Amino acid sequence: MIKVGIVGYGNLGRGVTLAVDKALDMECVGIFTRRDPKTLKPAVDFPVYSMSELTNFKDKVDVLLLCGGSATDLPNTTADLLKDFNTVDSFDTHAKIPEYFDKLDKVAKENGTLSAISIGWDPGLFSIMRMLFGAVLPDGNDYTFWGKGVSQGHSDAIRRIEGVKNAIQYTIPREQVLEKVRSGIAPNLSTREKHLRECFVAVKENANKQEIEQKIKTMPNYFADYDTIVNFVDEQEVAEMQKKLSHGGFVIRTGNTTEQNSHIVEFSLKLDSNPEFTASVLTAYARAVARLKKEGKTGCMTVYDIPLKYLSPISEESLRKNLL
Amino acid sequence: MIKVGIVGYGNLGRGVTLAVDKALDMECVGIFTRRDPKTLKPAVDFPVYSMSELTNFKDKVDVLLLCGGSATDLPNTTADLLKDFNTVDSFDTHAKIPEYFDKLDKVAKENGTLSAISIGWDPGLFSIMRMLFGAVLPDGNDYTFWGKGVSQGHSDAIRRIEGVKNAIQYTIPREQVLEKVRSGIAPNLSTREKHLRECFVAVKENANKQEIEQKIKTMPNYFADYDTIVNFVDEQEVAEMQKKLSHGGFVIRTGNTTEQNSHIVEFSLKLDSNPEFTASVLTAYARAVARLKKEGKTGCMTVYDIPLKYLSPISEESLRKNLL
Repeated sequence: MIKVGIVGYGNLGRGVTLAVDKALDMECVGIFTRRDPKTLKPAVDFPVYSMSELTNFKDKVDVLLLCGGSATDLPNTTADLLKDFNTVDSFDTHAKIPEYFDKLDKVAKENGTLSAISIGWDPGLFSIMRMLFGAVLPDGNDYTFWGKGVSQGHSDAIRRIEGVKNAIQYTIPREQVLEKVRSGIAPNLSTREKHLRECFVAVKENANKQEIEQKIKTMPNYFADYDTIVNFVDEQEVAEMQKKLSHGGFVIRTGNTTEQNSHIVEFSLKLDSNPEFTASVLTAYARAVARLKKEGKTGCMTVYDIPLKYLSPISEESLRKNLL
Repeated sequence: MIKVGIVGYGNLGRGVTLAVDKALDMECVGIFTRRDPKTLKPAVDFPVYSMSELTNFKDKVDVLLLCGGSATDLPNTTADLLKDFNTVDSFDTHAKIPEYFDKLDKVAKENGTLSAISIGWDPGLFSIMRMLFGAVLPDGNDYTFWGKGVSQGHSDAIRRIEGVKNAIQYTIPREQVLEKVRSGIAPNLSTREKHLRECFVAVKENANKQEIEQKIKTMPNYFADYDTIVNFVDEQEVAEMQKKLSHGGFVIRTGNTTEQNSHIVEFSLKLDSNPEFTASVLTAYARAVARLKKEGKTGCMTVYDIPLKYLSPISEESLRKNLL
């Protein structure tokens, strides 16, 4: 059995709890929270501890599933945790991945631990597809579309702005552009041209709405490169929208092997729950981290470094016999 | 530069020739054929040699791309070639993969060589998707649909029957079943229920059509498990159909993370030329074999064993920065 610990219990932590429960080869030693453990009622009856107790589990956990956000939680805590634990996380600030990777790779190698970063569906499965499609169809163009759906990272980022009570952000692919790409036409598109970002924001009394809107629209990495629509609504409305965390998207590559012969390769997701699906991917990669560590691997890895067989609880022989 | 040799020059060999030409990090030392090398005019101006000359290239080739068929060519030749060379092939008789793998793994390990088998889109990219989808969405069902398109392996198999002059086989997904699956309904389906196999066969004068039809419909691994339609047509008609080798297909997995939340993951291909696309995948995995061998890896590998980064000519740093 692979022994896992779950760090953080927001939407993602809740999803990981459910995914670990479904994994027959995994055992959860505990959920670790910064809140008072007594106040937390997890979706599955796993033990709950305070973060300060994590240090007592140093030799009792094969891998920690880190369920904090990418804006502040992960950049501030992963390196420290890696000194004592193997980790897997869903760090999704694309622009900061190289820096994050280098830092963790150094810490992990110094401490003989292993970390898999940026796991989920984007970064994660979509990253796999972009790379794989480009390698097998080098003469072509690829397009990533997100949505329509809620982005947790972007919603979190808005909520961190002073004066914001609650917020939700939808990423919306521009339908006409999607159709153009799928028809085999290969236009040159900026991120801005492919999507809209629509935000629903509830603010505190007397908050400066104009200033908040400006802060959202100019936020680097998150909104600055997109057309962003900001709607101010009441708290109740945001809460209602938050009940449904559906998402999805497409990675499409069109390309040619000869002038006459073109090909379309497409990957798509339709998700009822973004955090539950992300959690399920994170859990499969936690299995890979535990196994690769057992084989002596240390350092930082991404989806590009990990052979796919490590993700599956099925034996190599059976994979070859039944799935190849 | 990665030095490659191309063994066999049918449709797949021709595709590999084009793909190697597009790969800026590869150099072709030669195309090796059982025909008279003088009669062969390859699509790209690479040197052509007789198969008997291959032995002189033992230390001059990083990897051989084997472009023979799975019915007799690969089972009879790959093990011998592996004594002196690293190889990559598109062995696609699903039922015989375990046996083929075990045999080659032994030979490769004894001789310090490396072999990647069953590379292409199915087996190959579709195998990746089946495994990956199952690992990240364990509570679900997956469905593979092929076509409409020509299957080279199945067409070859018919052509090997005595009395057959030429033949082409189309695999056709049953539309209604495909729609059912994509709508999220998860029926239990046999291969037979998902597809038709339609064959167009030109026979020699006085050939026993009834016997040939029977031989096709009962052929194990290829046709015995399917509803197969056999049409006898004249040679001209088959030749006309053979000019367009389009294919495609879908891997779809539907599954749940909780009772309320279901997800649909889908991968699809629309290919103008099946052999050219297969060749392009084979060429990317040839790159991986050359690199992994350089790192000291030996034995037999499949798409499940090879970290994806080895397929791309792009540096690891750049993959993380630009594609993750």
